[in-house]
Amino acid sequence: MIPVPQGFRFAAVKAGFRKEDRPDLGLILSDGPAQVGAVFTKNLFQAAPVLVAKRLLQQRDVFRAVLVNSGQANACTGEQGVADCRQSLELAAAATGLSPSDILPASTGVIGKHMDMDKWANAMPGLSASLGQVDAIAFARSIMTTDAYPKLAWAEVGGGKKDIRILGIAKGAGMIQPNMATMLGFILCDAAVEAKTWQDMLKKAVDLSFNAITVDGDTSTNDTVYALANGAAGFEISRSGRNELQQALNGVCEKLAKLIVADAEGGTTTLRIRVHGAKSDAEAEKAARTVGNSPLVKTAFYGKDANWGRIVAALGRSGAAFDPMDVVLGIAGVTIFRDGEPVRFDFDSVLAAPLRGKEIALDVSLGSGRGEFVLYASDLTHEYVSINADYRS
Amino acid sequence: MIPVPQGFRFAAVKAGFRKEDRPDLGLILSDGPAQVGAVFTKNLFQAAPVLVAKRLLQQRDVFRAVLVNSGQANACTGEQGVADCRQSLELAAAATGLSPSDILPASTGVIGKHMDMDKWANAMPGLSASLGQVDAIAFARSIMTTDAYPKLAWAEVGGGKKDIRILGIAKGAGMIQPNMATMLGFILCDAAVEAKTWQDMLKKAVDLSFNAITVDGDTSTNDTVYALANGAAGFEISRSGRNELQQALNGVCEKLAKLIVADAEGGTTTLRIRVHGAKSDAEAEKAARTVGNSPLVKTAFYGKDANWGRIVAALGRSGAAFDPMDVVLGIAGVTIFRDGEPVRFDFDSVLAAPLRGKEIALDVSLGSGRGEFVLYASDLTHEYVSINADYRS
Repeated sequence: MIPVPQGFRFAAVKAGFRKEDRPDLGLILSDGPAQVGAVFTKNLFQAAPVLVAKRLLQQRDVFRAVLVNSGQANACTGEQGVADCRQSLELAAAATGLSPSDILPASTGVIGKHMDMDKWANAMPGLSASLGQVDAIAFARSIMTTDAYPKLAWAEVGGGKKDIRILGIAKGAGMIQPNMATMLGFILCDAAVEAKTWQDMLKKAVDLSFNAITVDGDTSTNDTVYALANGAAGFEISRSGRNELQQALNGVCEKLAKLIVADAEGGTTTLRIRVHGAKSDAEAEKAARTVGNSPLVKTAFYGKDANWGRIVAALGRSGAAFDPMDVVLGIAGVTIFRDGEPVRFDFDSVLAAPLRGKEIALDVSLGSGRGEFVLYASDLTHEYVSINADYRS
Repeated sequence: MIPVPQGFRFAAVKAGFRKEDRPDLGLILSDGPAQVGAVFTKNLFQAAPVLVAKRLLQQRDVFRAVLVNSGQANACTGEQGVADCRQSLELAAAATGLSPSDILPASTGVIGKHMDMDKWANAMPGLSASLGQVDAIAFARSIMTTDAYPKLAWAEVGGGKKDIRILGIAKGAGMIQPNMATMLGFILCDAAVEAKTWQDMLKKAVDLSFNAITVDGDTSTNDTVYALANGAAGFEISRSGRNELQQALNGVCEKLAKLIVADAEGGTTTLRIRVHGAKSDAEAEKAARTVGNSPLVKTAFYGKDANWGRIVAALGRSGAAFDPMDVVLGIAGVTIFRDGEPVRFDFDSVLAAPLRGKEIALDVSLGSGRGEFVLYASDLTHEYVSINADYRS
């Protein structure tokens, strides 16, 4: 059973935003006020729920609920989109007995369509009836778009007398790169944590997880991670406990991030791309992202082909500075390339088995410094093209 | 009939570098010494033929021939690769009565395999017998890899008494981005042009053509464009004639570049992405390339879906600076998006016909300056994935 942090309840209902016959509107309610940390997309075009949430967060950092719809991104929808978002908060507040300013919004789906507010209104009785009657998995399902499965991860932190629980729920399978992407993440925790500390902890965890994955290099207009700490576990966390909490938070976010890459649209395998020996961490990241976003690299791994030449070519155009003669490349623990040429000229038999695995480790040493970055990337498949050529229609 | 510039002959022969039963080794011979301009890949990993050619070009700028093989890139092959490349020049020199230092090399194919020098040696009698017996199209075919068709473009420049001819031959269909890509280009001209002028003219033409296309964002280790001007037309070009020659050269290179995008691996349509109103040309290029390399944008156009939200999302993450409210987006001449939202909310009927075309114009105004860039990009299709998942095997 999933250990849900104390004092949180879920709702999930079918509002009809999506064509599929499944819930597409969800709510997380904290029984008491929860301290909220938040991280948003860096895309210049920001969806209405992102704009609304940012304004709410300027006024306060304690909230009661998160309202999430899938099917409509409510992005590029102008002032009408902002008004629609606010109205959705008002409807949900009326249905649950909260104030509209107690609720943070998040949306995912098609860009540039106005939301159907009648559907919102019609869904409210169901949403309120569902509250507390469905589990975290049902909520996780209600926020899915092209996701193949709901994504949850959790941890328990020994706090002395009793445990603190962290539960993370995320969605995301495409438009995934740098600063998150069409990904939504909700971290629930029953610890009591001070506002700035909690925001810093979230930022740290997100940088190591959601900001270290790529599916297709695209960054969405709607990316949002909210972390709610409601203190329902009933005791203050100690200074040493805070480190433990950070580790647990990192772990939960990393698990969710890896679930997203593993569920990449059409993906069949995950590339774990570690670049080290770069002039800086930023250069290592640049090199890792160029490899992880190269269509030629991604299709080669889909084809179970250790076409390392494409990895080398991607490194060479990445903009990271290094001497080609210093580069060492390993695939699945086997050193493939050093001193400007392959170590041996036939790896296919050695690599055949690891290439069929669900995770393949690429290790790149640039030999020019101490910078390092680890990126998780998906492969590029026929299924990705099918999903994205047909998404709207 | 293709107007071949005076004083050039071709050879094409099957050396067996590729599995297919077709010529994979070609030679262009100028009957007299030709002034050579050259542009190479900016990838840090440079193939042996690029390294060898650069050293030759440091010593001289007049050559007689270009030797091109497909099937083996001879990249990431270390010192052995350089020695193999030099030996191939010696073999071709012996077979054609030239000196090895008269010949410039170019290779395209799989990275990281040593060339089979026996195949080179065995092909020489055929190469020499073929010289002057085959036409430019046969040569163009011999340098193809995944290309679906040979690529040629030409122009004639009125020089007074008679005409100057320019003939361009290229190959390339994948790994195409910024600074050329697995693309080889050979420009033949029978004008007499001074060394520095000719190099500058080539650079200018390449920036407007081969450096303004993208298939998959990948840049190859082997990119090479050689321009040979042999003066066989028999007269000096005037100062005003030089402008005309530049225009003709630009035109030939642009035609070849568009042929490459049109033949993009698996591509079904070409996107002409014009970004203007950027803070600088470089920012316009950054925005255009982010759109043109976005897998989500590329799959949408493959799906004949005017999913403009993906274009807007790509602009927003491109790193170009602008105010989202100032952005105006047009597709196929129809304004779709301005003031932060769609102009209308259903374009599908208006755009259905243009989306089925072979070239679709995207027009993006960022409203923040006078910078401009035009990029030609391919779409991303099932066929691209098939070609690149199976390339080596």
